[in-house]
Parts: sequence; structure tokens; C-alpha cells
Amino acid sequence: MTTGGISRRGLFGLAGAGVAGAALGGGATYAATATLGNGSAVARTYPFRGLHQSGIVTPAQDRLHFAAFDVSDITRDELLELLADWTTAAERMTTGLGAGPYGAASGPYDAPPDDTGEALDLPPGGLTITFGFGPTLFDDRFGLAGRRPDALEELPHFPGDALEENRSGGDLCIQACSDDPQVAVHAIRNLSRIAFGRATLRWSQLGFGRTSSTTRAQTTPRNLFGFKDGTANLRAEDTTQVERHVWVNDGDGPAWMTGGSYLVARRIRMTIETWDRTSLREQERVIGRTKGVGAPLSGGEEFTPVDFSVTGRDDAPLIDPASHVSLAHPEHNGGATLLRRGYNFVDGNDQLGRLDAGLFFIAFQRDPRTQFVPIQLSLARNDAMNEYVRHVGSGVFAVPPGSRSGEPVGERLFA
Amino acid sequence: MTTGGISRRGLFGLAGAGVAGAALGGGATYAATATLGNGSAVARTYPFRGLHQSGIVTPAQDRLHFAAFDVSDITRDELLELLADWTTAAERMTTGLGAGPYGAASGPYDAPPDDTGEALDLPPGGLTITFGFGPTLFDDRFGLAGRRPDALEELPHFPGDALEENRSGGDLCIQACSDDPQVAVHAIRNLSRIAFGRATLRWSQLGFGRTSSTTRAQTTPRNLFGFKDGTANLRAEDTTQVERHVWVNDGDGPAWMTGGSYLVARRIRMTIETWDRTSLREQERVIGRTKGVGAPLSGGEEFTPVDFSVTGRDDAPLIDPASHVSLAHPEHNGGATLLRRGYNFVDGNDQLGRLDAGLFFIAFQRDPRTQFVPIQLSLARNDAMNEYVRHVGSGVFAVPPGSRSGEPVGERLFA
Repeated sequence: MTTGGISRRGLFGLAGAGVAGAALGGGATYAATATLGNGSAVARTYPFRGLHQSGIVTPAQDRLHFAAFDVSDITRDELLELLADWTTAAERMTTGLGAGPYGAASGPYDAPPDDTGEALDLPPGGLTITFGFGPTLFDDRFGLAGRRPDALEELPHFPGDALEENRSGGDLCIQACSDDPQVAVHAIRNLSRIAFGRATLRWSQLGFGRTSSTTRAQTTPRNLFGFKDGTANLRAEDTTQVERHVWVNDGDGPAWMTGGSYLVARRIRMTIETWDRTSLREQERVIGRTKGVGAPLSGGEEFTPVDFSVTGRDDAPLIDPASHVSLAHPEHNGGATLLRRGYNFVDGNDQLGRLDAGLFFIAFQRDPRTQFVPIQLSLARNDAMNEYVRHVGSGVFAVPPGSRSGEPVGERLFA
Repeated sequence: MTTGGISRRGLFGLAGAGVAGAALGGGATYAATATLGNGSAVARTYPFRGLHQSGIVTPAQDRLHFAAFDVSDITRDELLELLADWTTAAERMTTGLGAGPYGAASGPYDAPPDDTGEALDLPPGGLTITFGFGPTLFDDRFGLAGRRPDALEELPHFPGDALEENRSGGDLCIQACSDDPQVAVHAIRNLSRIAFGRATLRWSQLGFGRTSSTTRAQTTPRNLFGFKDGTANLRAEDTTQVERHVWVNDGDGPAWMTGGSYLVARRIRMTIETWDRTSLREQERVIGRTKGVGAPLSGGEEFTPVDFSVTGRDDAPLIDPASHVSLAHPEHNGGATLLRRGYNFVDGNDQLGRLDAGLFFIAFQRDPRTQFVPIQLSLARNDAMNEYVRHVGSGVFAVPPGSRSGEPVGERLFA
């Protein structure tokens, strides 16, 4: 299942008509060049297989390509075959190999290359590839309706939502993260090719400058408001908290999801031109932290616990109850929290010369109904930040557990 | 002219109404945190001042944010003041400082911060900021009509051009390159703010995975066709060639451009889904090189000179005369060549699920009339690659020489 394990149909997607047979016959591989590239690329790899999928508590890489797909008119068996082909190719690519056994640059010459080649000389840069299932996958097309976890329901409409159809939803999702954007793009491109005739790219999003740390070794990065983002994020080292808030536990729902998680994605456009003309005092009031070191306005340094009881002049609380840090805090959400793993984005500009920029929010959790949904409802109603953000894209996906050697990701859903 | 040198109007752009006076009064600066960031960021800096602008023969950084601006209804003096403000801020940012003297996170609290802050903890990552003037700047608005270099004329329509108005042209351009995309984005964002009321963002483009080496120390990167791109590019070390093909020489045209160069930008969309279903043989025929090591099809290794006279079966040339390498070669263009400095881009996908991806081509040259234009005319007519690319955006800009300490970039145009 490591090389040559892609189905005849998957090879057709890679290689085009008329050559799948030839490609199936060979066992040649090309060796990945795992030397250091120019600039930022690094040779770090993360194992694709395991109890959980990688790309969740994995130290957040610097770059993202996220893609949502709609499944075409295929059978249940063909859907499972697609997942098997994706699994095989993903495992190869995370080790630095090409998507298919023939790679990008070796025979058969009369067939399209198995791999598109743009990552040929690049190390994997910590590539992780994470697969998820959207609620629409559980309609009547594949006989999966009875297997939908209760936790996987469409998100409600939140006040202020301005969702665009072509940036929302999807039957399947793939999150590719790497320290090199070319590696992440290469992964999504080749998985899209493999899906040819079986699933179509619905929307995709590139991101840079991750906005959250997922391990204590990482310093807190900044979002495009210029503030540190993710200071209070869950960290991989907090295993008890991660077990409680991120992983689907045994008995939480259908067994096929045990060890999995739920991914919520939101494309949050920031009206940065407006923000940039707001006083530093107002910016810090909206966030509830200082812009420089990221300390809570109640005092201390970045990692000092937030104290909502501290008051200043006129007995007013130093941290505004409508601030983002207050409304998002577990203390004000019945203990609910999220593992955030988002990225900044800038996608050029709109016709008015405003940058199309913001935060591509990604969060993992054990159950969106008790975590993202109530937190976001509170934020959408009261957050002082709402004046400067607009949610324009959205998706929720069940991320199945990791797969054992030879097992397609998500296979247990079909068992 | 180093700190506090931004005009009252520029500070207004940074800081909003009512506080420019206060901001002008202070001399406080904040120290850049030039430690290593997470992941890829590096502390490398390039000098902003010099005989030539940086960002041309500078070793190509990994990431790009390119922006074109239209100048608003302002006077000639106000235009020069904008250039002076941009120069001051650009010089600061290339050393790792914030855009303005107060930075992102220190007083006056009732004013918007001078800097937006998202690069606050990041090293400059080799940031270069390069300014250019479009042909439209030389109309009758600023009394510059008589100063337009003959070499700066609108590009002709090339066969197959499918240019989009909102990805083409512009009175001014800024090329920001860094090894960290957040640093490049930060530069364009803050320069846009400084231009408030004086120039408006017309279009912008992000790029990653540079497609050309500009020094011999850099290995050749790959474009999204999966091929090495830029093997035969001019290199900074070839000073005689650079002097001959890149820099405007004394006597070439108006004195204010001596030491400058001309930048041509083309947004080249690749129909990668079609390309990906093309045989390896056909891909290599179209390019004229092997996909693996990038050797010319006439034989040898990557840097072996191309030999168009070598023939194979039936006396057919091994390198197709319609191949890209043949048509772009100086030998077939009267010796004309370019310093290429382009980047790959992926901007999500279109409604048909195709990736909006390709090459953001940037080239510097001494005179587009004898370099880019004839080469591109030949390519547009005959290049076998045309089946897989579409030029959708375009711009040509006069890049003035570097500036001396205290001198705004391009000031000699106004002298």
C-alpha cells in the first residue's frame, strides 16, 4: 500500500486515458531529494499514520492550502476507492515522494507524469495532509445517512454572517500544511488530479503566517490586526485538555469517529483599512490585550492569566466585557475551548483598492455543538471586534481518526 | 530623513485625523526585534540605498507582494512628497523598523499606531522594496509628459493576450520581496496606508516559490509546470551582461533614469489541469528541456549550453524550434535577454474547480522595446507553450535608480 497502491481509476486521474495499464505494471520509484532547498524549506517530516491524523496537534507549520471538494456521481465503493487512493498518495507525499509511483520525470514517456513535479527538489517541510467529511456526504447518495455523527451538523446562521456559497461547504476537505507553500500547493494539486472524475474542487484557500501556536515551543504569531493570536490556545503538551476538548472519545458517537475530531473553518475577512485608522487605545480595548507584548489589560505579561475582576477609574473593568478576549474566554463559555490552527490570508484586493485580507480560522474540537457554536454565537452577538470582521466562508467537517498501515483514511466509516 | 521624516500628510495617512501634530512632535522609536522568528524567517537585510534600487539583482527572496497604484487628484509637489514618505517608510521597514516613528504599540494611545504591527516580532527576511513609474504617470497631470523615457511606452497587444483591466497598468508600482510573506504583505499594507488620499491600490499579486535564480549561489527553482525555470537567467555575478542588459546606461535616455531599469510584469495563468494530462514527452518537447534535471534535449546536464543543431531520427532537431527554450533563447532574439525575477501564484480556484494558478512573470531590462517586446512577440506567435498559458495581467514600469541618503526614490525625475 506504499507505492503502486493507487487504484486503476486513480492512476487514470494521474496519467490520463490509455496508459493506466502500463503505469500499473511498473514498480519504479524515484528517490526524493531531501536536501535543504533554498530559503525556508526544511527536511522535517511527520508520520502520516497514527492514532490520530497529523495536522491537528502537530506543531503548526507556516503555510496552508485548504481545499473542499464535492463528490461526483459515483458509487459508495468508488468513494472508498478515492479515499484509498488519496491515502496512498498522501502518505507518499508526506515523506517527500511524488504522488504516484512514476513520479514527475521518469517513464513511461508517452503518459502524463504521475506527479506534477513542482516539489521535485523540495524537502517535505513538515507536510501534513488531513482529511475530513462534510455533513452533505451523509445524504442518501452513498448510504451513509445512518452513520452521520450527531455532532456533525450544518452550522447555524450566526448574526452578521455574510457567507459566500463558493467559499463554503463541501462533501470532503483536505488541509495541507507545510513550511513551504509550494509543497502544500503541490499536495492539493495532485490530490485533485487523483480525484479526477470522482470529486471536484469546490473552493480552496491559501494561508501564510499561522496565527496560533499548537505547542509550547512555538512563540505566538500575529494576525493581520497586528496582535498576537493564540496566546491562550490549547497546546499539544496539555494532554488531558487535548483529550477532553479535541479528540472524539469512545462513546461520544459512532465508533468510526473515535480518535477523530471536528474541524470548523471560517474565512474571516478583516476590514483592515478601518482597523488601521482606529486608535491604539481602541484596538487594545477591542482585543482586551496590549498590542506590544500581548499582555491582558488586567496586567502582567503575555501568559499572565486574564483577570476580569480588575477595575480601574470609575470602577470600570480594565478588560471590557465586550472585548474579544473576554467573550472567547473559557470562563465565559462554560469551560468550552478550541484548538485553533488558523492562518492569515491576503488574496489581492477588491475593486475599491481594499486588501482582501483576514484570518482563515481553523479550529479542532471534540463537539462543535458545545464548543464552536456557543462560543461563536456569543462572539457574533457581542464582540466589539465585529465592527472590523466579516465571516464570508464556512465549513464543518468530521475528521476521522488516523489510519493503520494499509488502511485508507476514514475506512471505518464504510465498515 | 531616517525617522520622523514622514510628511505631515503621510503621518495623517498613518495616524488618521487630529493627531498628526502630536505624532510630529515626538522622536521616540521602537527597537526592532531582530531575533529569529518561527519557521522560515531570517534576519538578513539588504541596504535600501545605493546606486541601483534593491530587489533587482538582489538574490531572489522566496515570497512576493507586488502592488500597482493609481495616483489621486494631487499636485506634482504632493506626488513628490508621497515618494519621499514612501522612501522614508521603506528604508525603515527594510531594517526591521515599523513604518513610522511610533511603531505599532507605543504612544500616543489616542492615535492609530504608526505601524500595523503584524511584522512586529519578525526579522526583515531580506526585505527589499522597489518602486516604479508607469507610462500613465507621464500624462498631463503632473507636468511630466516631456520627461517620459522613450523606452517607457505601453506594451503592444500580443497575440493571445487576454488582459484583465483590474490586473493591468497603474501609475506607480511597488515590488516587495522577502523570505517571509507576512513581511512582504506588511510592507505593501503600510505603504498603501501612507498613500491614503494620494494614491489608491489598483491591483496586487502575491507570489511564492520564486521561479528564477538571480545569483549563482541559488539553485534553480521550479514553476508550476514542474520544470526548472530560469536556468539560463542572467545572474548578478555577470556584471558585464547585467550592465549591458539590465541597467539603463548614461545616454540611453533621460538622465534621471541612468542606473535604473524597466520592469515588465505579466500575470500568466497556466491551464495546469490540461498540462497535467499531457504526456511527459510532450511536456519536455514544449519546454525543450528534461523535466528531471532540466537538461536541454540536445544533451548534457542543466547548465550545458543548448545546441539547436543536434538532430535525431529523420534528421529532426532534438529541440523543437517551437519549444519555449528555443524561441526565448538570445540566439534567436538577436542577443536580447532579460533578468527574470518571477514567482509562482495560486489564488484559489475558479467556478469550474480549476486552480487559478500560474506564473507572475517579472523581468528587468535596459529597454523593453528591444528586449521584452520582440521576445514576447516571437513567443506569442509560435511558442508551443501557448496552448497551456494565458496572459491575463500586464504592466510596464520605469524603475528609477537607487537613491542617496536623504533623497526620495525617483526625485531626479522632478528636478
